[in-house]
Amino acid sequence: MTDFIPTPSVPAPDIVRCAYMEMVVTDLARSREFYVDVLGLHVTEEDGNTIYLRSLEEFIHHNLVLRQGPVAAIAAAAFRVKSPEEVDAAEAYYKELGCRTERRKDGFVKGIGDAVRVEDPLGFPYEFFYETTHVERLTQRYDLYTAGELVRLDHFNQVTPDVPKGRKYLEDLGFRVSEDIKDSDGVTYAAWMHRKQTVHDTALTGGDGPRMHHLAFATHEKHNIIQICDKMGALRISDRIERGPGRHGVSNAFYLYILDPDDHRVEIYTQDYYTGDPDNPTVTWDVHDNQRRDWWGNPVVPSWYTEASLVLDLDGKPQPVIKRTESSEMAVTVGADGFSYTRAPGDAINGEPAEEIGFKMGSQL
Amino acid sequence: MTDFIPTPSVPAPDIVRCAYMEMVVTDLARSREFYVDVLGLHVTEEDGNTIYLRSLEEFIHHNLVLRQGPVAAIAAAAFRVKSPEEVDAAEAYYKELGCRTERRKDGFVKGIGDAVRVEDPLGFPYEFFYETTHVERLTQRYDLYTAGELVRLDHFNQVTPDVPKGRKYLEDLGFRVSEDIKDSDGVTYAAWMHRKQTVHDTALTGGDGPRMHHLAFATHEKHNIIQICDKMGALRISDRIERGPGRHGVSNAFYLYILDPDDHRVEIYTQDYYTGDPDNPTVTWDVHDNQRRDWWGNPVVPSWYTEASLVLDLDGKPQPVIKRTESSEMAVTVGADGFSYTRAPGDAINGEPAEEIGFKMGSQL
Amino acid sequence: MTDFIPTPSVPAPDIVRCAYMEMVVTDLARSREFYVDVLGLHVTEEDGNTIYLRSLEEFIHHNLVLRQGPVAAIAAAAFRVKSPEEVDAAEAYYKELGCRTERRKDGFVKGIGDAVRVEDPLGFPYEFFYETTHVERLTQRYDLYTAGELVRLDHFNQVTPDVPKGRKYLEDLGFRVSEDIKDSDGVTYAAWMHRKQTVHDTALTGGDGPRMHHLAFATHEKHNIIQICDKMGALRISDRIERGPGRHGVSNAFYLYILDPDDHRVEIYTQDYYTGDPDNPTVTWDVHDNQRRDWWGNPVVPSWYTEASLVLDLDGKPQPVIKRTESSEMAVTVGADGFSYTRAPGDAINGEPAEEIGFKMGSQL
Amino acid sequence: MTDFIPTPSVPAPDIVRCAYMEMVVTDLARSREFYVDVLGLHVTEEDGNTIYLRSLEEFIHHNLVLRQGPVAAIAAAAFRVKSPEEVDAAEAYYKELGCRTERRKDGFVKGIGDAVRVEDPLGFPYEFFYETTHVERLTQRYDLYTAGELVRLDHFNQVTPDVPKGRKYLEDLGFRVSEDIKDSDGVTYAAWMHRKQTVHDTALTGGDGPRMHHLAFATHEKHNIIQICDKMGALRISDRIERGPGRHGVSNAFYLYILDPDDHRVEIYTQDYYTGDPDNPTVTWDVHDNQRRDWWGNPVVPSWYTEASLVLDLDGKPQPVIKRTESSEMAVTVGADGFSYTRAPGDAINGEPAEEIGFKMGSQL
Repeated sequence: MTDFIPTPSVPAPDIVRCAYMEMVVTDLARSREFYVDVLGLHVTEEDGNTIYLRSLEEFIHHNLVLRQGPVAAIAAAAFRVKSPEEVDAAEAYYKELGCRTERRKDGFVKGIGDAVRVEDPLGFPYEFFYETTHVERLTQRYDLYTAGELVRLDHFNQVTPDVPKGRKYLEDLGFRVSEDIKDSDGVTYAAWMHRKQTVHDTALTGGDGPRMHHLAFATHEKHNIIQICDKMGALRISDRIERGPGRHGVSNAFYLYILDPDDHRVEIYTQDYYTGDPDNPTVTWDVHDNQRRDWWGNPVVPSWYTEASLVLDLDGKPQPVIKRTESSEMAVTVGADGFSYTRAPGDAINGEPAEEIGFKMGSQL
Repeated sequence: MTDFIPTPSVPAPDIVRCAYMEMVVTDLARSREFYVDVLGLHVTEEDGNTIYLRSLEEFIHHNLVLRQGPVAAIAAAAFRVKSPEEVDAAEAYYKELGCRTERRKDGFVKGIGDAVRVEDPLGFPYEFFYETTHVERLTQRYDLYTAGELVRLDHFNQVTPDVPKGRKYLEDLGFRVSEDIKDSDGVTYAAWMHRKQTVHDTALTGGDGPRMHHLAFATHEKHNIIQICDKMGALRISDRIERGPGRHGVSNAFYLYILDPDDHRVEIYTQDYYTGDPDNPTVTWDVHDNQRRDWWGNPVVPSWYTEASLVLDLDGKPQPVIKRTESSEMAVTVGADGFSYTRAPGDAINGEPAEEIGFKMGSQL
Repeated sequence: MTDFIPTPSVPAPDIVRCAYMEMVVTDLARSREFYVDVLGLHVTEEDGNTIYLRSLEEFIHHNLVLRQGPVAAIAAAAFRVKSPEEVDAAEAYYKELGCRTERRKDGFVKGIGDAVRVEDPLGFPYEFFYETTHVERLTQRYDLYTAGELVRLDHFNQVTPDVPKGRKYLEDLGFRVSEDIKDSDGVTYAAWMHRKQTVHDTALTGGDGPRMHHLAFATHEKHNIIQICDKMGALRISDRIERGPGRHGVSNAFYLYILDPDDHRVEIYTQDYYTGDPDNPTVTWDVHDNQRRDWWGNPVVPSWYTEASLVLDLDGKPQPVIKRTESSEMAVTVGADGFSYTRAPGDAINGEPAEEIGFKMGSQL
Repeated sequence: MTDFIPTPSVPAPDIVRCAYMEMVVTDLARSREFYVDVLGLHVTEEDGNTIYLRSLEEFIHHNLVLRQGPVAAIAAAAFRVKSPEEVDAAEAYYKELGCRTERRKDGFVKGIGDAVRVEDPLGFPYEFFYETTHVERLTQRYDLYTAGELVRLDHFNQVTPDVPKGRKYLEDLGFRVSEDIKDSDGVTYAAWMHRKQTVHDTALTGGDGPRMHHLAFATHEKHNIIQICDKMGALRISDRIERGPGRHGVSNAFYLYILDPDDHRVEIYTQDYYTGDPDNPTVTWDVHDNQRRDWWGNPVVPSWYTEASLVLDLDGKPQPVIKRTESSEMAVTVGADGFSYTRAPGDAINGEPAEEIGFKMGSQL
C-alpha cells in the first residue's frame, strides 16, 4: 500500500536535465581504462583521486565524476536547474519535505559552483546546480571521434521498492511520465520520467532500493553501439556485456548494457523520440508483453533485474536497501512461474487466431 | 572414427557458388507472406504451387524456390558451375562416388536449364547447373529498396554427424576451408567452406543429419538487419527471431537467425571478409571459446543447436537422420557440464592474470 | 541600417515548436507522388483539394498540408504553443505589433482547433495553435518504415532582407539563437533560432523576402538520407536533388536539399545537437569560412542562395518581395569576387604556416 | 583508330587480384600523417625512407608502400598471382609482348618475394608476385578500429589515351569487363575490369597517359566514408576532398575522392556488387547519362578529369605522357559544349513526356 510523499507548498525547482553522476570506484586506474580507453569518454581534468569525464557534445565541465573510494557506490545524481535561483528553490523544497540537505557555494566537485545535495525521500543523493565551467564542446572534433563515440549523457535509472510513490514524488518535482509498465492488477513495475525533451532524464525501476540501476550515454547511430560490443569482444571482456544490444519496447531506443569494473551498470542508448509537447502521449506497457523490455523478445538476463549499485548518504555511507514487497517483474515474467505473450491474446496472425506465445524459453532460466 | 569418402579419379566440377535452394513448404501463402511481405524478396514468377524468389542484386532467375508440399523439407541445394560442361563433370563425379544421380536437360525448376541432382555421400540433395535465365538485376532499383533489403544469397549450412568426413569430401569437391571449430582432443564441431571469395558457400555443423541448418541472405549494412528485427517486432512475430542479432566470432559477420512458418531457419548476414587468395589463412577456433559463435558472448539458444530442416532424396522422401556420436558442441559448452572461457586461460587482463570466465550463466540453461 | 521592430508590452506566446506548414501546390497529384510515393510521408487524411501528411513519429494530426492552388506558395508556417491560452497571448501580441491577425476557433485546416494566423512584421504568415487531433504515432510501426523514412518535422527556414531585424523580433518572441553567420564588418548573413531543444525551429537567411527557403524533416540516421538520393536516382529525378548530401558546418547536421514539383525546397536533416541548457553556447561562423555551409567545403549551388518560395498574406495573395540591400552571402563568398578560406589565415598545418586556401574553384561558378 | 596489342601465344599469368601500390612521395613525414594519422592505415614496418602500410583485413605484408623520392609518381601497381609459377608465366608473357621486364627473386620491396616488374604495353609499371610475408590480419581487432576504418585495397584506376586498346590488352591478360562508358559513335571513355569477384581490380579512364588516376580502399559501410570527410573537415583540410561523397552510377559503390599531400588521388569506396559468375552481365553506360559518374547527378569537378599521377619506368624515371586524341568525357558532358541527360530522351516522368534535362548547371563550370 503506497504511502505517498506530500507535495511541498513551495514551488519545485525548475530542472533542465540530468547532468552528471558522481560515482565511487574502488580502483581508479581500472575504471579509467573502462571509461576512457574502452568507452572513449573525454577527460576534462583528473588527479590521483578523481577523474572528470564528458561526452563529445557536452559543454559543461563533466557528465561523470569517478572518485576513488572504499566501496563502489553512487555519491550523487546531479540535475542542472534553469538559473542560480533555482538552487535556492531546490534547497527550500527539500527542507520542507524534511530531507537532509547540504549546500555548498563552491560546489561538491570541480567545475560545478553553488549546489545543494539532498537525501531525497526515496533515499537517493540528488544534487541541483546551475553554475558550471564551460569547456570545449567537441561536437565537430571528428579528429577525436571514435567508432563507438558517446555524445550525450542521456539518463539515470533508479531502483526503488514503491514505484507509484516515487513517481508521484517526481511528478511533483516537475517530471513528466513518458512511459510505464503495469499489470492488470494495478501494479506499476517501472516508470520513465523526463524534463528535457527525450523519453527520460531518470526512470524508476521497481526493486530493492534505493539503488542506482544505471546511467546512460547516447551515441549518434546504432552502429556506434555495435562497435562498442565488437571492441569489448576484441578486448576479451565480452562477459562485461550484460544485456543487448537490442531495441527497447519502452522508449524505442536501441540499447546495450555493460558493466564497469565495479559492476556499475552503463547503458549505451540511441534514438528514442521527442517528448516536448505538453500533451505528449504516455505509453503504458503490459508487464506480460514480451516485447516491452526488448522489442525483439530477447530475454532479460536475471542479473539485470536483481543487481544495482548502492547509493550513498551525505556522509558517504551506503544507504540501507529496503525490499520491494510488490510483485517483481522478473518473477511475473520469467521462468516457470512467469507469463509473457508476444502477441496480445486473441490477436489474429495471418488470419488465424493467435496462440499466446511466451518468451524464448530455451534462452532464459 | 571417421570413415572417409574416397576421392574420385575424375576431376571435380568447377563450382562457382551456392546459387539457390528449393524448399518445400506446407502453406505456400504463409511462406509467401514471410519471404515476400516480411523479408522483401522479389518474385521472379509464381503459380499456385511454386514461387521463384530472388534477392536485389541477383541476375539469375532465382535464389529460392518455395514449393507447396506435404512435409517441410529441403528438396535441393543448388550450386552454379562454371560452364555447361561442368554439369557433365558433376554427373560423372557423383557416379564414380556411387551416388544416385538424375540429369534433366530442361532443369528441375523454371529458370534453370540442364542440371544434375544427386544424393550426395552425406545424404544431401545437391544440384549442379550452369544454364539459367537472366533476369533484371535490381541493384540500382532503389525505388524498390526496403529498409531491410536482402541483396545476395550468401551460403547454405548443413548438419552432418561426422564433420571431418564431410569436410574431406567437400575439399575433394574443390571447396576450401576458411574457418573451423575444434577441441584439443581433435574433435571437429563445424567447418566453413567456400568457392566464391567469401567465408563460405556452405558450412558443416556437427549434429544429427543429413539436415539443413539454414540458408543465408546478405544485406548491405548492419542497420538493414536491425530493421528486420524491428519489423518482426512490429508484426508481433518476435518469437520467430531465434537468435541474434549479433556478431559472429567465426566469419566476423553480423548475423540474425529467424524461422519461417515451417521452422526452416534463415540467416541474415553481412560483412564477412575476402577469402580469394590461394593461401587465405584458415582460422581455427577452440570450441570452448565463448566468443566463437557470438563475439559478444551472447548465448546460443539450444534450439539453434538441435533443430534443423529435413532434406529429401531424389524421390522426394525425407532422408533418415543419423545420430552424431561424437561430442556435441552444445553439451561441451552450455550448462552445468559445459565449459567455456571468455579470456584464454592465462591471459592477462589489466596486468592481472585472468580468471577463466565462462558464458553468461543467467541467460542460458 | 536596421529599423528594429518594437518589443510588445504583453508577454510573448509560449511556443513549443514548429509544428506544420501549409503549402500551396499547383498539381496536387504530382505533389502527392513526391511527398507520399518518393518521400514516404504518411497520409492522415485527404480529399480532392488537400492532403494532410505526417512523419513517422508525429502524434499531432499533420506536419504538412498540401493544398491545390493557382500559385505555388507557403500559406502558413504554424507553431504549436503550450496551452490553449497561449493562442490568446499570440493574438494579443501581434495586435500590439500592429499586425493583421485572423482568429478561427475551429482552425484553418482539419485536425487543428482554435488558432490565430498573422501577417508578421517580416511579412510571413505565422500560425499559433494548441488544439489538435491526436493520431496514431507510428514510431514502432517498423512494418511501415521505409529505407528513407522521415521521422520528425525539424524546422522552417525563412528568407528575409534584414537578418538582425528579424532576429531581434524572434528573440522577443522567445526564440534563442544557437548559431549565426557574420562577417568582420558586422553584417549578419543568417541566424538559427530555436524553441525546442534542437538547433532550430526556424532560421533566417539573408536575401530578398519574405520568402520561405525550405522546411526540413529529420531522419534517424545518415544512411536514410543517402537512400533518398539513391531512390531519386532510380526514379531519374536526380536533377531534383539541389544540394548535398553533406555535413553542415552550422548545426553539424547531415543534410540534403531537394525540390518538389513546384520548386518548394525540402531539407532532409539528421543529427544536430542538444540546445536545451539556458546558457547553450551560441556558435558564430565567419561568412568567409568555406566550411560553414558545408563542413567538407563542397560548393553551395547558386540556386540555393537565390531561389525560395513565395509566401501568402491572409487573403491568399503572394506577399511582395523586398530586395536585400546588405551584402549577399553568395556575392561575398562565391566566384571571382568572393573570398573564402578553408584554414583560418595564419593557422599552421603540419607545422608549416598555412596558405589561405579558398573553395574548390572548379566546381563552382 | 585503335592499334591493338597482339595476343601472346603463351598463357597469361593467373592473376588473383590487385594487391599493392608502390608510391613515390616527396615528403614522407607528411604522407605518413595523411595515410596513418588521417586515414588510419596500419604500419607493418617502416624506416627512414619507406613505410609499409596495410588495411585492417589484409593478411599480406602491405597494400601500399610509400617511398621517399624526388618526384611524386607511381613506381608499381602490383598484382598477386595464383602460385609461384605464375610469376614465370608473367615474365614470359611480357617478354613475348616485347616489353622490358625485370625479375627479382627477393622482391622489389620488403615483404614480397620473387617478383617480376614490367613496363607494360600501355606504359604502366606492373608487378606480379605470389610470395609474401603473412602478417596479422586485424579483422577482429575492433580495439584498433577507427570510425573511418579502411578494410581492403579495392582497385587501381589508370589513365590511358586509347581505352579500347587497353581493354583488349587487359582482357587478354584475363581481366573481365564489368562496366564501361561509351557514346553512340562508338567511342569508349572508360572500362572497369576485374579478376577478383568485385566490379574491378583496375579500370581504364580515357585521357592523357600513362598516368595513375587513383587507388581505392574499401570501408565496411557508408558512414565510415562520411566520417573521413568529417575528420578532414575537423582537420581543416576539406580542400583535399576533391569529389564526393556520392553514389557511383558505374559500380553502384558509395565513394569519395581525396588527395594526398603530393596530389596522389585516393578513392574510398564501399558496396559494389558480386561479379564472380562467368556470365556476369556487362553494364554499358551512355557518356551523356548524367548519373553515370554520380547517381545523384552531382557534378564531376574538372580536376578529376584532368589530373593524375605520373608513373615510373623501371629505371625510376617518369614515363612521358601521351595525349588522348579521341573525345574527352569532360568536353562532351560538361559546360557549354557538353550534353547530358538525367532522364533518357523520351522517357515518361509522371505520365508526361520528359524533357531532356541536363546536369546541375550552377554547380559546374
